[in-house]
Amino acid sequence: MRKNKKDRPWIKKIGLEITTPSLKDNTADVDRLIKGIKKELSTEDIRIEFSMVRQIPSLLREYNYRAEAVVFEDRNCWHVIEIFPFEKSSDVYALGVDLGTSTMVLRLMNLTTLETIDEASFRNPQNKLGDDILTLIHIAAQEDGLSKLQGLLIQKINEEIGALAKKHGIGKNSVVGMCVAGNTTMTHLFLGLDPYWICREPYIPVINKPAIMISGEIGLAMSPRAPILIFPNVGSYFGGDLIAGILYSGMMQQKDVSFLVDVGTNAEVVIGNRDWLMACAGAAGPALEGGVAGMGMMAGPGVIDRVTIDSETLETKIRTIENISPVGICGSGLIDLVAQLFLSGMIDLRGKYVEARCRDRLQDSGGIKHLIVVSSEDSGTGKPLTLSQPDIDSLMRSKAAMYTILTTISNTVNIPMKEISRFYIAGTFGSYLQPHSAIAIGMIPDLPLDTYVSLGNSSLKGASKALLSARARDDIFRIRDRITYLELNVNQEFMNLFSAAKFIPHTDISLFPSVKAGLS
Amino acid sequence: MRKNKKDRPWIKKIGLEITTPSLKDNTADVDRLIKGIKKELSTEDIRIEFSMVRQIPSLLREYNYRAEAVVFEDRNCWHVIEIFPFEKSSDVYALGVDLGTSTMVLRLMNLTTLETIDEASFRNPQNKLGDDILTLIHIAAQEDGLSKLQGLLIQKINEEIGALAKKHGIGKNSVVGMCVAGNTTMTHLFLGLDPYWICREPYIPVINKPAIMISGEIGLAMSPRAPILIFPNVGSYFGGDLIAGILYSGMMQQKDVSFLVDVGTNAEVVIGNRDWLMACAGAAGPALEGGVAGMGMMAGPGVIDRVTIDSETLETKIRTIENISPVGICGSGLIDLVAQLFLSGMIDLRGKYVEARCRDRLQDSGGIKHLIVVSSEDSGTGKPLTLSQPDIDSLMRSKAAMYTILTTISNTVNIPMKEISRFYIAGTFGSYLQPHSAIAIGMIPDLPLDTYVSLGNSSLKGASKALLSARARDDIFRIRDRITYLELNVNQEFMNLFSAAKFIPHTDISLFPSVKAGLS
Repeated sequence: MRKNKKDRPWIKKIGLEITTPSLKDNTADVDRLIKGIKKELSTEDIRIEFSMVRQIPSLLREYNYRAEAVVFEDRNCWHVIEIFPFEKSSDVYALGVDLGTSTMVLRLMNLTTLETIDEASFRNPQNKLGDDILTLIHIAAQEDGLSKLQGLLIQKINEEIGALAKKHGIGKNSVVGMCVAGNTTMTHLFLGLDPYWICREPYIPVINKPAIMISGEIGLAMSPRAPILIFPNVGSYFGGDLIAGILYSGMMQQKDVSFLVDVGTNAEVVIGNRDWLMACAGAAGPALEGGVAGMGMMAGPGVIDRVTIDSETLETKIRTIENISPVGICGSGLIDLVAQLFLSGMIDLRGKYVEARCRDRLQDSGGIKHLIVVSSEDSGTGKPLTLSQPDIDSLMRSKAAMYTILTTISNTVNIPMKEISRFYIAGTFGSYLQPHSAIAIGMIPDLPLDTYVSLGNSSLKGASKALLSARARDDIFRIRDRITYLELNVNQEFMNLFSAAKFIPHTDISLFPSVKAGLS
Repeated sequence: MRKNKKDRPWIKKIGLEITTPSLKDNTADVDRLIKGIKKELSTEDIRIEFSMVRQIPSLLREYNYRAEAVVFEDRNCWHVIEIFPFEKSSDVYALGVDLGTSTMVLRLMNLTTLETIDEASFRNPQNKLGDDILTLIHIAAQEDGLSKLQGLLIQKINEEIGALAKKHGIGKNSVVGMCVAGNTTMTHLFLGLDPYWICREPYIPVINKPAIMISGEIGLAMSPRAPILIFPNVGSYFGGDLIAGILYSGMMQQKDVSFLVDVGTNAEVVIGNRDWLMACAGAAGPALEGGVAGMGMMAGPGVIDRVTIDSETLETKIRTIENISPVGICGSGLIDLVAQLFLSGMIDLRGKYVEARCRDRLQDSGGIKHLIVVSSEDSGTGKPLTLSQPDIDSLMRSKAAMYTILTTISNTVNIPMKEISRFYIAGTFGSYLQPHSAIAIGMIPDLPLDTYVSLGNSSLKGASKALLSARARDDIFRIRDRITYLELNVNQEFMNLFSAAKFIPHTDISLFPSVKAGLS
């Protein structure tokens, strides 16, 4: 995984020198073409799909034996994707795909200039049937369910490819490659593989490392011989989206040890460097994704992503995405809010409301305390936005789970937190998270703020990276094979760590010196 | 091409040790299967067709993770054909195919015991549309012509496979491989490739060396992932049937130099040994195939294959195939007849009837002399079987062409005829040919009779050999690449040789000492 190996593209267009037929050179058309490609690539192993063999005599004659080939390499063998006329052919393109359970993104890239041309983001079309992984797995087990789910997905992706291609004036056959990163279930649904056993003990996927396929096998609206690289998974609960994140972070090329976390319904955590990688996944609670709190929402327009509370006046200032009237709060906004509540003394170290501080902003509804965060006048919904005690309790469990998972895995590899050189945070959650707030509530370790690096959509970025570089493409499988997966045992030791982490920031305040300093 | 490389099968069934899934080993089903295969084959490169990936979880569970795999090797990579339950699976089978323009033969072999189980011989179903190569090429160029020709062929082959399988109680999925040898045009029609340019200058096939395909790509009624090996061709007029003949003869493993001839509408000739091979093809005339002489026929029941004429009494004895009343004569019978006519003085050294010897057996019909070979009473057709002067003239041209081609190619490589250690004769023609008669008329060189070896259906035998042995399979491509193809120039030198060979046995009788001795 070191950088010393020279990088090169694995999908490319090459100009060909093809001799014209004569009585002295009666080599067959296909063999003549292969000879031209071998000469250009200096390789012996060239393969042409049989579906293309039939077309070659007429194509070569149409092009007057002056042609370019688009080819891809897989396991030291080059495969022909398209044959275009020499000098008249346009650039060729490929797609990086983030196959999220809720949101999907296509990134269109020009393989000739290596530029990103455009992106399209859209909701998973399967969500009309079910919007969480377990529901989708359940639907797949029904009659025709699997093919229906796959059909919805492929149809939608094809529509989006078609729209992108039309917008940029790109012919279907000029889209010559795709890399897809997604969790294990979404990857299975994309391929039409039954995810039935993924959620059933002992949690066995159909496949960990799909071979490179060609688009015609899946029915994608691009060159029918375009390679489709599906990111491998480590298991049912550690998918290709994480491998893409590791690839994009570059942590497996660094001498120092890094953390990478991806927070969703589960929290997936990776620790390691260029020599080793260990991963685990655990339920960090949906509070962090905005799924539980009464006003919790996915990040989007009008969603609160920043909160500050003046510790003297308790005046609360909020910032929303796109600066419109607030309608809810996302996971990172919630962390900001709870951190500010703690720092202003409105909640105590157990995360309980301090009535003496909150006073009339605290309301009782059916015996449950709610804090009015945004009044009905200021709210974008016409109703006050409130945070209940159970909402805070839920976040406390989530943050404690996250810190416990981080502690457990660093204990397992015997690397003290302070030796972590980089702490990568993937996804939308990472984009909006304020590390100092997450530290303040004791969710993440008290490391220098510049240790924390937000990766953005690292699934998409990793998938796109793998399209352009053979080394990155191969690194995916090296990463996958190098990962040691740590099965989290919820044993007494874990529960002890968890209980200790259910305080703000922690029962052992010495672990959070910067928070301690701010409080004193 | 030496025999020192250890041989091994390239299609085989292997027992697998597959671990069962557990929480401690959550490897995906497909990767688990691949792991089992890798262990058994000691190889890294295993591929499973995507069509099979979907079935693996249910198959492995049905078999309780105790399975056998049928696999084939291609370019150092092993492909999975079928997965069967361990210990309950039956033997596996494969088919050698001779794809003749007129007659086709399937040979069913047991890959477990290596035994030949059965053969099926049938007429090319395309012959209902056209029965020679040029007509078939013409039909292929018509609308839907190519797919119609391919459809007829595949349907007929599928019927024959079905009948063989039924007869021997073999399941469709237990037929796991096929090797096909045929001339370049028939190979193209089998694959649905347009033969249009094969008969047009500069005579360019679509493909010389088809990659190994899988049966599903052609729609064959066997395991859909069974490998289909198509013998390569050297060019439009030197096809895979000849490569199969060379393979079966073993001439490319011998230190001494051999000839191989295959006589049909064209005569194809190969000369060489383990270090080099040279080939050429030329029009030897259809007389040898039984197509021209008035009573000429393909070998079959009632066809004269042997003739002796008492040189004193001129009494003519004939032998027919299956010993029934004569209805015609095949190429080798014709050679016997003309040799006997010459040795008994009924024709002279120019091949002209000697009226003084033939007397009343010679009839004149429209100024053309006919010899009554079989009277109407003895004939199976109710009419006399006769041989006309033009029939003999035609054979004289064919035999002269054959001898000239042999002389030209041996002159080109500078190997005197007497250094030829083996003279292989392929096909039905070779099976019935009496070498001493062919020598007597000067068609083939005057070598010791044990030099001549009849190969029988070497196309079928070569195809079958390649099914069972990776070395033989690889030898095919070595043979193909090693052949130097000699374009016959019909120049003055060729015409001089040809003119000299248009005598019986030759103008230079010293070339045929055994014939000279018999005459004196």
